[in-house]
Amino acid sequence: MTQEHPDIYPEATGLAKATVQVHQAETPLKLYGGWFCPFVQRIWLILEEKGIPYQFIEVNPYNRPESLLRLNPRGLTPALEYNKKPLYESTVIAEFLDEAYLEHMPRLYPEDLYEKARSKIWIDYVTSRIVPAWFRFLQYQPTQGEDGLEGLKKVQQEFLGYLREWTKEMDQEGPYFLGAEPTMADLTLGPFVVRCWLLDHFKGGSGIPKEGEAGDDELWRRWRKYAEALATRKSVKETTSEPDKYLSFYKWYAGGAAHSELAKATRAGRGLP
Amino acid sequence: MTQEHPDIYPEATGLAKATVQVHQAETPLKLYGGWFCPFVQRIWLILEEKGIPYQFIEVNPYNRPESLLRLNPRGLTPALEYNKKPLYESTVIAEFLDEAYLEHMPRLYPEDLYEKARSKIWIDYVTSRIVPAWFRFLQYQPTQGEDGLEGLKKVQQEFLGYLREWTKEMDQEGPYFLGAEPTMADLTLGPFVVRCWLLDHFKGGSGIPKEGEAGDDELWRRWRKYAEALATRKSVKETTSEPDKYLSFYKWYAGGAAHSELAKATRAGRGLP
Repeated sequence: MTQEHPDIYPEATGLAKATVQVHQAETPLKLYGGWFCPFVQRIWLILEEKGIPYQFIEVNPYNRPESLLRLNPRGLTPALEYNKKPLYESTVIAEFLDEAYLEHMPRLYPEDLYEKARSKIWIDYVTSRIVPAWFRFLQYQPTQGEDGLEGLKKVQQEFLGYLREWTKEMDQEGPYFLGAEPTMADLTLGPFVVRCWLLDHFKGGSGIPKEGEAGDDELWRRWRKYAEALATRKSVKETTSEPDKYLSFYKWYAGGAAHSELAKATRAGRGLP
Repeated sequence: MTQEHPDIYPEATGLAKATVQVHQAETPLKLYGGWFCPFVQRIWLILEEKGIPYQFIEVNPYNRPESLLRLNPRGLTPALEYNKKPLYESTVIAEFLDEAYLEHMPRLYPEDLYEKARSKIWIDYVTSRIVPAWFRFLQYQPTQGEDGLEGLKKVQQEFLGYLREWTKEMDQEGPYFLGAEPTMADLTLGPFVVRCWLLDHFKGGSGIPKEGEAGDDELWRRWRKYAEALATRKSVKETTSEPDKYLSFYKWYAGGAAHSELAKATRAGRGLP
């Protein structure tokens, strides 16, 4: 494997470090993943929110532990080991945990099956629209001879348009997607919401208006309430590392030099691989 | 809306016509869709296999009925109307029907939650790998100056590689993915399996070896057993129209002239929109 991220920090820092440390004891349920990965954070949030006992096994993508490779030769993360059997794909793992630990409150889907399906439509929207647009925006590089600002504006507007569609579907009061408590929709999108500051840092602004700025309106107020609720949520804070570590990691994406399968697919305008 | 398919046949024919006719009476559950659409056929197969009472409302994509547009302004199909409320996205509808009509045999997922999750990993593989590759193969056009045969071979090999990965995961005996009876995995991939003859017709061969041909082996024998079981399944036959109608429809894809969102995305090498 090529060195795609030569300076990746090897382990969680900040509050996430403590969370990793208290989840080192052997348990039948193991989560393999890296501190930096938003897809891993989805699963991590579910485990924390539901209070499921788990062991966290830190994985550095170019120094994968033998135990992960035995489980899954491709070494994909997040990977779950459940009674020695492997599961991968974050949305599949998420639904599995919800069903397999149903007695662990909270429930991550509405009990009403129609409302549950409506939730899944918007979770699918995260996968098919918002996340690819987030990565396209972060990775945007002007091509030669192109007006870079215009191109940047285009990927930004696409991203913001998707956020507004999502926001229209939210419970009016909130702060979360379906109301006062987070559900699967929030834990799926959340890791990207709390990484939007990287767009400010690397791309000169996410484009989400601050209070009273040009373009601010009812929808953006609702979005900010949402983003604030996520950023201050205990489970989110306790699975988040130090800001400078994210900067070192994501600068490879922001500079268009990341070579992961995901980076290449989203740069090429494709969906998630 | 532009005329993307000027000669699309307006209604189901063959055995599918009779199935549409016996599902015209008003019921609280309505499926909106066209006879030609593989994503609609997924849902149609579930309704038939589980014996769920439903009303089938035929939709021609450029003459959408008012009732569909009231339900969903974007007019997406398959769309489900459930007690006057809309659902869309075929995989979301599929899981909804499985859960909402659990008492209607057969069960479409294994009862064991780990095995259910494993099923979903391979259903995700259909969406993220096999279906985009099927459309890329069908729509392949050599670019100027390119050796067309080599390019065609490449998209064909990609498609065949994914089928072999899928086949390795099947129950050895079968004939279906998990054993003697079809489950969600089969109803999700099935509509594309029974459309592989279009690759023979338009692209000079799907590349799947026939018995005893060069390249035939244990895996392809297993695949052919699978494809044969699907093609002769009652629910599949009764949701299938006349072959010449598919030829008229898919020639737009095969000629690279289809302009649906899906056609454009898969031609560009992207995932399903």
